[in-house]
Amino acid sequence: MSIKSINEFLHALDSLPLFDHHCHGTVTEQLQRPDFEELISESSSPATVGTTRFDSQIGFQVRGACAPVLGLDSFCSPEEYMAKRTSMPSESINKKFLEATGIETFGLETGHSADMITSPNELHQLTGKTVHEVVRLERVAEEVAEKIRDQETYEKEAAFLEELDTTLRARIKNAIGVKSIAAYRVGLDFPFTRPTENELSKAVTKLLAQEGSIRLEDSTIIRHLLWFAIDKAQVIQLHIGYGDDDVDLHRCNPLLLTNLFRQSIGSGARFTLLHCYPYHREAGYLADVFPHVYFDVGLAINYTGARANAVIAESLELSPFGKILFSSDAFGLPELYYLGAKLFREGLAKALINFHEEANWPLDECYRIARMIGYENAARLYEVD
Amino acid sequence: MSIKSINEFLHALDSLPLFDHHCHGTVTEQLQRPDFEELISESSSPATVGTTRFDSQIGFQVRGACAPVLGLDSFCSPEEYMAKRTSMPSESINKKFLEATGIETFGLETGHSADMITSPNELHQLTGKTVHEVVRLERVAEEVAEKIRDQETYEKEAAFLEELDTTLRARIKNAIGVKSIAAYRVGLDFPFTRPTENELSKAVTKLLAQEGSIRLEDSTIIRHLLWFAIDKAQVIQLHIGYGDDDVDLHRCNPLLLTNLFRQSIGSGARFTLLHCYPYHREAGYLADVFPHVYFDVGLAINYTGARANAVIAESLELSPFGKILFSSDAFGLPELYYLGAKLFREGLAKALINFHEEANWPLDECYRIARMIGYENAARLYEVD
Amino acid sequence: MSIKSINEFLHALDSLPLFDHHCHGTVTEQLQRPDFEELISESSSPATVGTTRFDSQIGFQVRGACAPVLGLDSFCSPEEYMAKRTSMPSESINKKFLEATGIETFGLETGHSADMITSPNELHQLTGKTVHEVVRLERVAEEVAEKIRDQETYEKEAAFLEELDTTLRARIKNAIGVKSIAAYRVGLDFPFTRPTENELSKAVTKLLAQEGSIRLEDSTIIRHLLWFAIDKAQVIQLHIGYGDDDVDLHRCNPLLLTNLFRQSIGSGARFTLLHCYPYHREAGYLADVFPHVYFDVGLAINYTGARANAVIAESLELSPFGKILFSSDAFGLPELYYLGAKLFREGLAKALINFHEEANWPLDECYRIARMIGYENAARLYEVD
Repeated sequence: MSIKSINEFLHALDSLPLFDHHCHGTVTEQLQRPDFEELISESSSPATVGTTRFDSQIGFQVRGACAPVLGLDSFCSPEEYMAKRTSMPSESINKKFLEATGIETFGLETGHSADMITSPNELHQLTGKTVHEVVRLERVAEEVAEKIRDQETYEKEAAFLEELDTTLRARIKNAIGVKSIAAYRVGLDFPFTRPTENELSKAVTKLLAQEGSIRLEDSTIIRHLLWFAIDKAQVIQLHIGYGDDDVDLHRCNPLLLTNLFRQSIGSGARFTLLHCYPYHREAGYLADVFPHVYFDVGLAINYTGARANAVIAESLELSPFGKILFSSDAFGLPELYYLGAKLFREGLAKALINFHEEANWPLDECYRIARMIGYENAARLYEVD
Repeated sequence: MSIKSINEFLHALDSLPLFDHHCHGTVTEQLQRPDFEELISESSSPATVGTTRFDSQIGFQVRGACAPVLGLDSFCSPEEYMAKRTSMPSESINKKFLEATGIETFGLETGHSADMITSPNELHQLTGKTVHEVVRLERVAEEVAEKIRDQETYEKEAAFLEELDTTLRARIKNAIGVKSIAAYRVGLDFPFTRPTENELSKAVTKLLAQEGSIRLEDSTIIRHLLWFAIDKAQVIQLHIGYGDDDVDLHRCNPLLLTNLFRQSIGSGARFTLLHCYPYHREAGYLADVFPHVYFDVGLAINYTGARANAVIAESLELSPFGKILFSSDAFGLPELYYLGAKLFREGLAKALINFHEEANWPLDECYRIARMIGYENAARLYEVD
Repeated sequence: MSIKSINEFLHALDSLPLFDHHCHGTVTEQLQRPDFEELISESSSPATVGTTRFDSQIGFQVRGACAPVLGLDSFCSPEEYMAKRTSMPSESINKKFLEATGIETFGLETGHSADMITSPNELHQLTGKTVHEVVRLERVAEEVAEKIRDQETYEKEAAFLEELDTTLRARIKNAIGVKSIAAYRVGLDFPFTRPTENELSKAVTKLLAQEGSIRLEDSTIIRHLLWFAIDKAQVIQLHIGYGDDDVDLHRCNPLLLTNLFRQSIGSGARFTLLHCYPYHREAGYLADVFPHVYFDVGLAINYTGARANAVIAESLELSPFGKILFSSDAFGLPELYYLGAKLFREGLAKALINFHEEANWPLDECYRIARMIGYENAARLYEVD
């Protein structure tokens, strides 16, 4: 293939196949405005009195870019958007936006509010595309802990560890990788060494002593889960940086994982750093120096909207191009898949055209790099296709 | 209103009304070059031998943008600038620059070198505009401490706390909010919990034992001041990030306040993060997830000069547009009000035109957002106008 | 001199004399592709399976900008590049690239793999230019320690300290400054106070007890070295920020040195912060507030390639223009000198033209600032020429 003009290049990027290696399902229920506004922010609080979530980068993207997908004028009012949206069947909204993404392969993480959103199979039904599962380690541990706690067993600690091992082995067989939300639960500022049997035993006792639904907030068990995944040579997705108000963002700097990466070189395990904003330059450094570290700037792309161009450009500094991935990190709203894909295409195109114009990169080479980042790096990493 | 062209939009931004929610007074004395150079840098040292403070972003702004206000050619030499400036009465310089700012409302913080600079009333006389006071908490505590220490009282600790309470109540009645310089005095890396009576009592004893002019550098009393303000549902301005060499900048990351924001949700108190550079992206995240957190990039705008465009654009990422404010943080030189306002208008205009051109934002919507950030957000937050 | 057009300005920047105040020597042996790829990355691991180091910003710079220097087409394949390169004598490659840099003066740091690369004298022979030495403090201490350990001496601790003092005094006489890699060896997150005699004595005992080649990883002795240099009013180059995987990047934030800078004001010593990425904004702040702090964004320029423009622009924010320096930090490959110089010229030109166009900076003033940053600041700082 030979691309002869910037227009041809832009056209090619518009239909660039994408591998969305980290996303969640979409809601299948009708949404009213308050629920919709809640889903276009990482905040767990309602919008400040006197303001609306529509007055934000992502709100402007919804009005500007999503409205036309629903047959509305670009930059219609929030009221017009919600009126049209609530008049349509949820499935039709989901289909319209998902079709418009050009995403060919999904890596669906199933550990967050799985009852509210589409499963891998349902997403496959909706899109006709390949959907792979990504298993959330902490969720599996919580489910196993609740099961063991509630059944009559002697030696519950041992039973938990055995059942956890069995369950994880089974789950990863059908998945392309695992995910850890250590950043949310304990932060990343502790030594990620393999726990001793004694440490682990004490931590399990404590975990099983929780009443009601169990919440894993213990760094020892999280280390156990991570080392399970390392020993099994998994691709391990890690939440990094920006997220909701549950996170202590200053404790989510990926550089805090430097020692974990040193310890796991050569294990066969690989790590993908998710989102990373505002630490994406730090992530690029790690992807450069560690052969088993990859990263993306998903989530941040959606939420920085018209500024996603700048964030994507910053992600193209130190990292080898073979270590950068695409994800939408969409959750709930099909608009988020669409915007994630659209803003990614546009921002990547803009950065590469800038390199073409300022540093003479041939357009064919720009396109080769775009294909790597959009699809091929993930396909090679996850060993699919 | 309907804006039909970029020229019309630029024109509208030139006369956008501004609410400068955080600034200090201007000096009223004649300034010679060494004093002037001292006031265009955050350093407490003279310029390095062989260099001049005029060779900096702000120095170039003074020569490029301030010179014409005084009737000089743009980019006249520093010598020409100082010659003209010292030939003019100080009040006339102050009036010329302040008039040219287009600032309609001032929030004047009165706790720093108040004897050298104009008071709220004097600034009102100079400008004819509305001037509100912002009370510096640490300064009030120091004044009360000196008074109590120096008078004959039994039980000085109790007397201090009572007098502090009375004084603060009186001061905030006539102010739109309070300011804390915790970042300067103790850094932000400690838990911002409410102090116990016992902790507080010990800290007060120590404070009152200081000789000479009292300097509050105790985190316990600062926490007491902050919780006073939270309990009174105040707007609390916080120094964040960049400042002079008195600050440990790495201990001024606003993310260190995450727990304080969690604890004070729903209290009625609101926080405005000032300056924030180079942590303005972090500030934008906090403004997104916490309904009572606002921020600005004042100070940094003046001092990054021709690069202020980039800083302002970066401030328009995660934060809802209803949570971003304008301040000049001008101190001493009327040039700093003028440059703060001018660079803010230009940088905001440039960012919004970019969003118009790249992401199709209608110019009317760009203008609506500009009005929010320039004035309306502050008016709503401080409940004035 | 009066520059009348942007073209004239660009032409002047193309031949701007450069003072590369921090670099290493070039290899003199023929290199095969694996060695070459190793030298265009900071990683100590081979490229990830399925990727090549040529698919990176620096790889694209080699193909785009270095290929024509060897008589090849821009963006020839890596295979063509390596074929041509291996067909040429190493000295001829070195000469071609070094001549094309326009570097007039070198500050050559001799402490890293000195046996593999050219010495100051050899670099002078290659280029005909002035080459000054920069002495790596830790290397001198290691050499002295090995010598003292291996000879028959009573009171080895005292002998070590005496010999260290004598050697350092001799070495700095022939050098323009010293370099410390404290960031690599112990991180920057400890108090940089002067060690006590007792602390020092214990640390020396431990150092001399090492077997084989001695590696200095002790913060006490490093503090001793730094205070030696401060007492001798040296220019002290400090590794900051980005480097290879041996570094804990989050412990290399230059802000961690704030107290060291406070303690050494007025000592006559000056500090140059090297590389700094991704903490170059923080470095700019330090260069503003401390009169004896300078910085550069070397290394990051080479490795961010087509994005170096953005990094250079960010380095032109808070710092006075008289405190910014140029370095390539080239090691091993002559391509790295060439790219460092070329990307620096282009990025600086681009930033300054932007300031000309957006903030009316006269082109003569842009050129004056370029000369300062490219050469004059370093000449004044190192007191040469």
